[in-house]
Amino acid sequence: MAGGEFDLIRRWFARPAPAGVLGVGDDCALLPPARGALAVSTDLLLEGRHFFADVDPEALGHKALAVNLSDLAAMGAAPTAFVLGLALPAADDAWLEGFSRGLFALADAHGCALVGGDTTRSAGGVAISITVFGELPPEQALKRAGARVGDDIWLSGQLGAADVALRLLRGEPGVAAPAQRDALLAATRDALERPQPRVALGLALRGVAHAAIDISDGLLQDLGHILAASGCGARLRVDELPVAPALADVPPALRRRAALGGGDVYELCFTAPPARRDLVLAAAAGTGVPVARVGVIEAAPGLRAVDDAGAPVSDLPGGFDHFAERP
Amino acid sequence: MAGGEFDLIRRWFARPAPAGVLGVGDDCALLPPARGALAVSTDLLLEGRHFFADVDPEALGHKALAVNLSDLAAMGAAPTAFVLGLALPAADDAWLEGFSRGLFALADAHGCALVGGDTTRSAGGVAISITVFGELPPEQALKRAGARVGDDIWLSGQLGAADVALRLLRGEPGVAAPAQRDALLAATRDALERPQPRVALGLALRGVAHAAIDISDGLLQDLGHILAASGCGARLRVDELPVAPALADVPPALRRRAALGGGDVYELCFTAPPARRDLVLAAAAGTGVPVARVGVIEAAPGLRAVDDAGAPVSDLPGGFDHFAERP
Repeated sequence: MAGGEFDLIRRWFARPAPAGVLGVGDDCALLPPARGALAVSTDLLLEGRHFFADVDPEALGHKALAVNLSDLAAMGAAPTAFVLGLALPAADDAWLEGFSRGLFALADAHGCALVGGDTTRSAGGVAISITVFGELPPEQALKRAGARVGDDIWLSGQLGAADVALRLLRGEPGVAAPAQRDALLAATRDALERPQPRVALGLALRGVAHAAIDISDGLLQDLGHILAASGCGARLRVDELPVAPALADVPPALRRRAALGGGDVYELCFTAPPARRDLVLAAAAGTGVPVARVGVIEAAPGLRAVDDAGAPVSDLPGGFDHFAERP
Repeated sequence: MAGGEFDLIRRWFARPAPAGVLGVGDDCALLPPARGALAVSTDLLLEGRHFFADVDPEALGHKALAVNLSDLAAMGAAPTAFVLGLALPAADDAWLEGFSRGLFALADAHGCALVGGDTTRSAGGVAISITVFGELPPEQALKRAGARVGDDIWLSGQLGAADVALRLLRGEPGVAAPAQRDALLAATRDALERPQPRVALGLALRGVAHAAIDISDGLLQDLGHILAASGCGARLRVDELPVAPALADVPPALRRRAALGGGDVYELCFTAPPARRDLVLAAAAGTGVPVARVGVIEAAPGLRAVDDAGAPVSDLPGGFDHFAERP
C-alpha cells in the first residue's frame, strides 16, 4: 500500500530524529518546549511567483529555508526546527535530490532540524510551505515596535543585487549593455537565489538593537513597518546606502530604485542608540557581516530620504507588495 | 506603500493577539513555551487536488484547519495556535469573508489562535498551508508505535460518507440511481467538506489508548501505519465497521471500498487493551463521539480482514496515496 508519496518522503527527507524530538513520521512531531519564547514564522512560496520554474533546485531548497530563517534572524531568535509542505507536479528524483541537498545544507549550518512535513502532487507548479521555529528570551526580542527617536538606522550587507538579477532574468531592457548582461547576472544572481539569512547577526544584536526587520519587501516598505509600529519617522541618507559594487555600471536611477525598493533582500534593517555604535560594530565584526549606518529615527512621522547634500529625494520607488505592485 | 496584501490581511485575519502571545504582525510570532511537549503538524492543500474550485469558502476555511486539528487529536494534544499561508489568484472579499468565518469558527471552538501568516497572489488556484501547534505531556502521546498484541482496534464516528460524496461530486456513475444522487450527496457532503476533528476524544484517550492515528488516508492504509510502526498485525472485522447509514443503498462493493479505503476521513483509529473497554466507552460518552470495536491486534504481521462468518475478505481496496493512486 505504501506507494510513491511515502517512498519519496522517506528517500529524500527522512533523517534520524534530532535529540529530544519525538514522533517524526507520526501524526505530529513532538518537540521539547522552547527555552524562553517560541518564535514562529511561515512562508508559502509558489513557482512563477516567488521563483522561476527552471531555478536550480539546490538553490531553491536553500532559499525556501533561508527566507524563513531570515524572519527568525530579524527577531533575534535561535533556530531549532522546521516543517516542510511540498507540492510537486511529479516525483522527480533529480529535482528532489538537489532541493533536499540545498535545504539540508542550510538547515545543518543553523542547527535547524526538519521535524515533519506534507508532500503532495500539484496540478500545476511547485509550491513550498515552510514553518520555522526558534527560541529566545522574549524580553530580548527585536520587535518592529522598538525604535526610539534618536536611534541610528543600520543595514547589514548590500542592497540592490537581487533586484537587478531578477530584472535580468526577466529579460528587462536597460539594465546593462547587451555585452555586460551575462557578467552582471553572474555577479548578482547569488543575492537573489542564495541569500544568507543573518541569524548570527540577529543573535548578536539582542540587547543591542532596539528594533529590527528583514527587508524582504524592500528597504522603504520594511523600514516603513518599523516606523509605523514604533510611532515615529526617519531620515534616510540614500547616498550612504550600501549598494552592491556589482551595480556600479547600472543606470543610476535604476540602481537607486533597486536599493530602495527592491524586494527579496534578506538583510536586516535595525535601529540602535548612538551610544551603542561600538556594540553594533562589534556584533558585525564578530559575525563577519558588514553593517552600514544610513539614517536616524526622528519624532516626525514619515520617511524623509535625503542625498549627500541634505536635499530631499522625492522619486522613491514603492516596495514589494505581493498583491498590489508586481504582476 | 501598504497596498492590497496588507489591507487584505488586516481586514480578514487581524485579531487581537491572544493572551501570552507577542509579536503577531512582526517578523515572527512569539508564543509562550509549550507545557510538556510542543506538538506540530503541517498540511499543504491545493485547489483541484484537495478541494474543488467551487467549494463553499466557509467550508474550506473550516476544513483547512480541521485536517490539522485532526493530527493533534490523533496524538492526544491540546490545540494552542496555528499559522496560515494563503495563496489566492485575486483578493476576493466575499471569498475571504466566508473562508475566514469558517476558519475562525473552528479555531474558536478549539481555543486555537491564529498567530501568524503569509498571504500571496497565486498564478493558478488557491493554495493553503496551515501549521498547527498543540501541547501534551510527551509520555501520554498517542503514538502510532504503541499498539500491543491483544489490543482492541477501535474507530470513532462513521466511515464511507466522504468517499461517496467525492465520487458524486466528480460525477462518477454507479454510486446511486440518478433520482437518488442529490439526496445522497446532501446526506454525505458534510462528511467531506466539514469534518469534525476529534480533539476532545483524543484528549480523553490519553492514558487509555495505546496507539492512535487519524484515517485521513483511509482506514486500511492508516491502520497499516500503526501495524508497521508497532511491529504487529491485525484482524479486522469488516462487517462491524461503522459505515455511515446514508450509504445503505450504495452498491455493497462500493460501500465496502468507501469504508475501507476512502480517504479524507478525520476519525480516529486507536488501540487499547480489552481491560480498558469501559474507559474507552466512557471517553466516547464523555465527548459525545460514538466509537466501535472493529478488530484486534495480533502478533503475526499483516492485516487480515474477515467477514461476520470469520471468512477472509480478499478484495481490499488501496488507501489514499497522493502520488500513486488517485489521478
